[in-house]
Amino acid sequence: MATVAIVGASGYAGQETLDRVLAHPSLELYALGSDSLAGRPAAELDPRLGRNGWRGIPRFITNEAALSCGADVVFLCLSHEEAATVTPPPRGVVVDLSGAHRFVDPGVYPSWYGFEHPHPDDLESWSYGLPEVTAPVGRLVANPGCYATAALLALAPIKDEIEREVVVVDAKSGMTGAGRSLKPSSHAGAVLENVAPYRVGEHQHAPEIASLLGFPVALVPHLLPVRRGLIATCYVRPLGSDLRSILEAHYAESHVVTVLPEGIAPELSRVQATDGAEIGVFGDRLTGGAFVVCALDNLGKGAAGQAVQNVNLLFGFPETAGLRLSGVLV
Amino acid sequence: MATVAIVGASGYAGQETLDRVLAHPSLELYALGSDSLAGRPAAELDPRLGRNGWRGIPRFITNEAALSCGADVVFLCLSHEEAATVTPPPRGVVVDLSGAHRFVDPGVYPSWYGFEHPHPDDLESWSYGLPEVTAPVGRLVANPGCYATAALLALAPIKDEIEREVVVVDAKSGMTGAGRSLKPSSHAGAVLENVAPYRVGEHQHAPEIASLLGFPVALVPHLLPVRRGLIATCYVRPLGSDLRSILEAHYAESHVVTVLPEGIAPELSRVQATDGAEIGVFGDRLTGGAFVVCALDNLGKGAAGQAVQNVNLLFGFPETAGLRLSGVLV
Amino acid sequence: MATVAIVGASGYAGQETLDRVLAHPSLELYALGSDSLAGRPAAELDPRLGRNGWRGIPRFITNEAALSCGADVVFLCLSHEEAATVTPPPRGVVVDLSGAHRFVDPGVYPSWYGFEHPHPDDLESWSYGLPEVTAPVGRLVANPGCYATAALLALAPIKDEIEREVVVVDAKSGMTGAGRSLKPSSHAGAVLENVAPYRVGEHQHAPEIASLLGFPVALVPHLLPVRRGLIATCYVRPLGSDLRSILEAHYAESHVVTVLPEGIAPELSRVQATDGAEIGVFGDRLTGGAFVVCALDNLGKGAAGQAVQNVNLLFGFPETAGLRLSGVLV
Amino acid sequence: MATVAIVGASGYAGQETLDRVLAHPSLELYALGSDSLAGRPAAELDPRLGRNGWRGIPRFITNEAALSCGADVVFLCLSHEEAATVTPPPRGVVVDLSGAHRFVDPGVYPSWYGFEHPHPDDLESWSYGLPEVTAPVGRLVANPGCYATAALLALAPIKDEIEREVVVVDAKSGMTGAGRSLKPSSHAGAVLENVAPYRVGEHQHAPEIASLLGFPVALVPHLLPVRRGLIATCYVRPLGSDLRSILEAHYAESHVVTVLPEGIAPELSRVQATDGAEIGVFGDRLTGGAFVVCALDNLGKGAAGQAVQNVNLLFGFPETAGLRLSGVLV
Repeated sequence: MATVAIVGASGYAGQETLDRVLAHPSLELYALGSDSLAGRPAAELDPRLGRNGWRGIPRFITNEAALSCGADVVFLCLSHEEAATVTPPPRGVVVDLSGAHRFVDPGVYPSWYGFEHPHPDDLESWSYGLPEVTAPVGRLVANPGCYATAALLALAPIKDEIEREVVVVDAKSGMTGAGRSLKPSSHAGAVLENVAPYRVGEHQHAPEIASLLGFPVALVPHLLPVRRGLIATCYVRPLGSDLRSILEAHYAESHVVTVLPEGIAPELSRVQATDGAEIGVFGDRLTGGAFVVCALDNLGKGAAGQAVQNVNLLFGFPETAGLRLSGVLV
Repeated sequence: MATVAIVGASGYAGQETLDRVLAHPSLELYALGSDSLAGRPAAELDPRLGRNGWRGIPRFITNEAALSCGADVVFLCLSHEEAATVTPPPRGVVVDLSGAHRFVDPGVYPSWYGFEHPHPDDLESWSYGLPEVTAPVGRLVANPGCYATAALLALAPIKDEIEREVVVVDAKSGMTGAGRSLKPSSHAGAVLENVAPYRVGEHQHAPEIASLLGFPVALVPHLLPVRRGLIATCYVRPLGSDLRSILEAHYAESHVVTVLPEGIAPELSRVQATDGAEIGVFGDRLTGGAFVVCALDNLGKGAAGQAVQNVNLLFGFPETAGLRLSGVLV
Repeated sequence: MATVAIVGASGYAGQETLDRVLAHPSLELYALGSDSLAGRPAAELDPRLGRNGWRGIPRFITNEAALSCGADVVFLCLSHEEAATVTPPPRGVVVDLSGAHRFVDPGVYPSWYGFEHPHPDDLESWSYGLPEVTAPVGRLVANPGCYATAALLALAPIKDEIEREVVVVDAKSGMTGAGRSLKPSSHAGAVLENVAPYRVGEHQHAPEIASLLGFPVALVPHLLPVRRGLIATCYVRPLGSDLRSILEAHYAESHVVTVLPEGIAPELSRVQATDGAEIGVFGDRLTGGAFVVCALDNLGKGAAGQAVQNVNLLFGFPETAGLRLSGVLV
Repeated sequence: MATVAIVGASGYAGQETLDRVLAHPSLELYALGSDSLAGRPAAELDPRLGRNGWRGIPRFITNEAALSCGADVVFLCLSHEEAATVTPPPRGVVVDLSGAHRFVDPGVYPSWYGFEHPHPDDLESWSYGLPEVTAPVGRLVANPGCYATAALLALAPIKDEIEREVVVVDAKSGMTGAGRSLKPSSHAGAVLENVAPYRVGEHQHAPEIASLLGFPVALVPHLLPVRRGLIATCYVRPLGSDLRSILEAHYAESHVVTVLPEGIAPELSRVQATDGAEIGVFGDRLTGGAFVVCALDNLGKGAAGQAVQNVNLLFGFPETAGLRLSGVLV
């Protein structure tokens, strides 16, 4: 058993992490941090937390207190800028679900995130934890961004088999990807029955993808009128190898990522509320190009599910412990 | 362990039942019946059924074969009229998720369901299984309708404490309640961004509710532009007792039904994809009336979840084995 | 021609009013007020306002300036509390789309709206303008609430033909009914794929309906995951008259309200983005009660459309000038 | 005035065409064809057609009768395969909203549409009517496909200024694009809360786009959980010219297509239920590529609106007569 503190537990990423920790056979909830709810019972965030077996869930404490409570695992579920200011506790695993520790180069932060990184020298201490591409190393883990996860699951295994100059990633995400804070773009009137691209040509997951692949891709993210789920349609030009075979081989042993049979496309509805991902591979009749489509849940494999998967690997727990990977819900 | 056959496994109720059986510690899938898919691998219904640990799921067989395969439990997930024609196997538990065995009086069928019941004399052999109101008895169980479940969870415990002549149940359901068969009213163009009442004054769950309560209620069902979830807003006039106390006492020990604290209203989003139900109780400033609101998932507590709960009770398994009752998903 | 000033033009009601004024043959836009956008070009609110024939639309000015600009018609599209503080200009028609002038009794405000009315003695100067029920009189018009409009269109013509003690109005509205300001309940994560009742037993449209009918009804409003549209399902017990005949006669000449043929239910999708209303009338097989269902657009007949209809009546324009009443869009 | 017959009036395209004809100052409805509704009053399709001024709308007649009724304009709103069998009447304008006459080369039909064209020699008689790119000529007009319209509005003006080998069009459409006929993929359960690509690499609008541009693009269409609206995100690599200037100049006089100011992205919600289109132009910080995004309504500019626009041009009516181009609805 490992004890867990969640810092920033009242946002979407925090709540989803809590959900998986409560269902995990080897993790024990120890502290729930939230500066806005400190001192309040957890059921104030969500009445489900007051039910049945969960009556023992602690009250919220401050984020500072949660961070320093001595838990074996700390999940940082803060904004990029808040997470960047955090000094990790002297022991224990820390998984940062924000983008604050995904780059070694501190210059990315002012340029793409809009702030100077307060701890530029510490960035090298963090490893990027995308288990199917680059497993986490050490006790400080930067959890990948949701778009980056989908793009990298689709592209990383084939990156040497495609023309690097002309890769396109058209990505669509459910609105929880934009977080729980109030802003005009997350008002229901701006989201319902609407679809629109945003941060066109300047989304911060673009340099993250480039950093892992070794070359940039053209990325346009779009907001969908659904709560959860993300789909990335990747356009590539194969150099000659059979991309399907490479992807099938790469994920043959995975219990998290499924390459779908020929002719079947990924769908949001089959991955929503799960921690898995689906990949579809298709050829183009007209251009000789190929399409690799990846669907996952932005809050699952794209955030909390991957964070727990990273912890499982570091602690030697079964890789999928506590994850939501089965179920054939309508 | 008990073996399970699902008859009519390719509809929504069948798929949701399958989902719970696969997650159940004491149920073992034995046969999947579907006349339209007989002979085909299960993954043709849903690619998730071809994944990982589920590679051993059997092919579909005919409904007749599934019915007579000798399983310990048969779930009937057929249309009302098809289910009415079924002759139960000589042994084993049968749970009928349709309305074909919910009434002792065969006269209800031509009048409300549009067909003459082919086995009118056998109707007395079936018990109505709504565990929190009337537990299943014997080996033949009629699983309640989704609207009836919500209305009865709200009203049955207080039925002697309200004016019986003026009870209103305004109910709203996700579109899966209308089933997977193709008809103009279930075309996405008729459902998306739309809300409308249907079968106004003549829905077949009205006599079902009346039969259990002992008096009729005014019921209008509405179709919502969401996949899952059902909310029933019940309008009652209390005779004097405190309805909240009665309901809280009635559900104090339940792990399935939660009476929410004062001032908190049930929400679809907290019960979707679960087998639980939420109840809220409110007074009216103007009329002296009261409101009891019940939310559940039409495919969970309103169908497959309740079917498994009934089986758990009959077999002496823990009441909530295999049910989806925890989780605080966004 | 009459000149128009819109005070509070940047909210939903203001924008919808603007839309109708721009399409009106006898109204001319004169001033657009918005304290938050004062000094900015109108296209900053919505790029459509910079297009084609609309390039002449003025910049926003302050609400105070718009109020006192001398326009022939002022539409007040403010919050209840802001509108209550307004001193009407000395001449011209003023239509208040908020609830600030719908009651003669100032005691309603602290009790149901949460504030003391700053001008209690002026309330008698305002008339309630629901043309099909009570036409506007004088130059100061209180435009009805959206739920009140739907309930009164259904119930006012039959109020002497039903048992008054037991009327229920179950109402469901699109989320624009809650306005454009940012609050947790209007965050897309709280609205999408969700349905929930709110202000149960204490919504401020309940006394408004009671005031017009002469007796209270039991009202529960619900928020729907759609942008626009409102449906009110009213449960009544007829005293003996044929309610359908009464309603058909009442609306026989109306170009705004349609009583649907027997067996056809109102649908949100047919009234969305229009200024009309649909009414359906049904009997109940079990209880002897009847159902009158009214659907309209909360921003159309429930707000801006009705405001313009009131102006048309006061100025002697054709009643439906500038309204959206035709169209059979999918 | 010109008289109009609509052949196939009961599908989505037919209903939307009807809607525009009824609002058109110079078109007069003459015949409504529908084989499934022949002999029935129009109000059976939609109760709105029985209202007010529309009480004179004719009953449906057969498609054959509508085709040969001698109207000045015939709108063909049939399936591709049905439309291909039609012999145009000897006089009058015919606008085919299907794909049956968009190609001169009959070989496209077996390969991309799944049927041999029954009148291959007549294909040369039809002109492709996309007014902003290639105006209709003669009396037989092939109305463009919805995806093709969006892609061509974005790409045709810049086709000589980009690398032709690497153009990507990622397109997303509301579900009405798939038509009103019943099929599993248009069941609400497959559409709601879901997003998925379909016909990946083999959609029939790909050769249509290639035919007009002179080179193929990589196209993946996706189905969105909304009724109306289409957005095409085009990825291009500029050869050096400023794409924004070219597009702004091309559409400077258009009342149908708007190039949005820098930094503003097209949104479905601003074009839904209109006959206009929005275009946004963006650069990419990382790759040197550019993005041209076009949003329109698949049933408006992508179908019925464009059909009427084509008729306006051929008859010398104002280009936008009867079109829905103004309005700033929420």
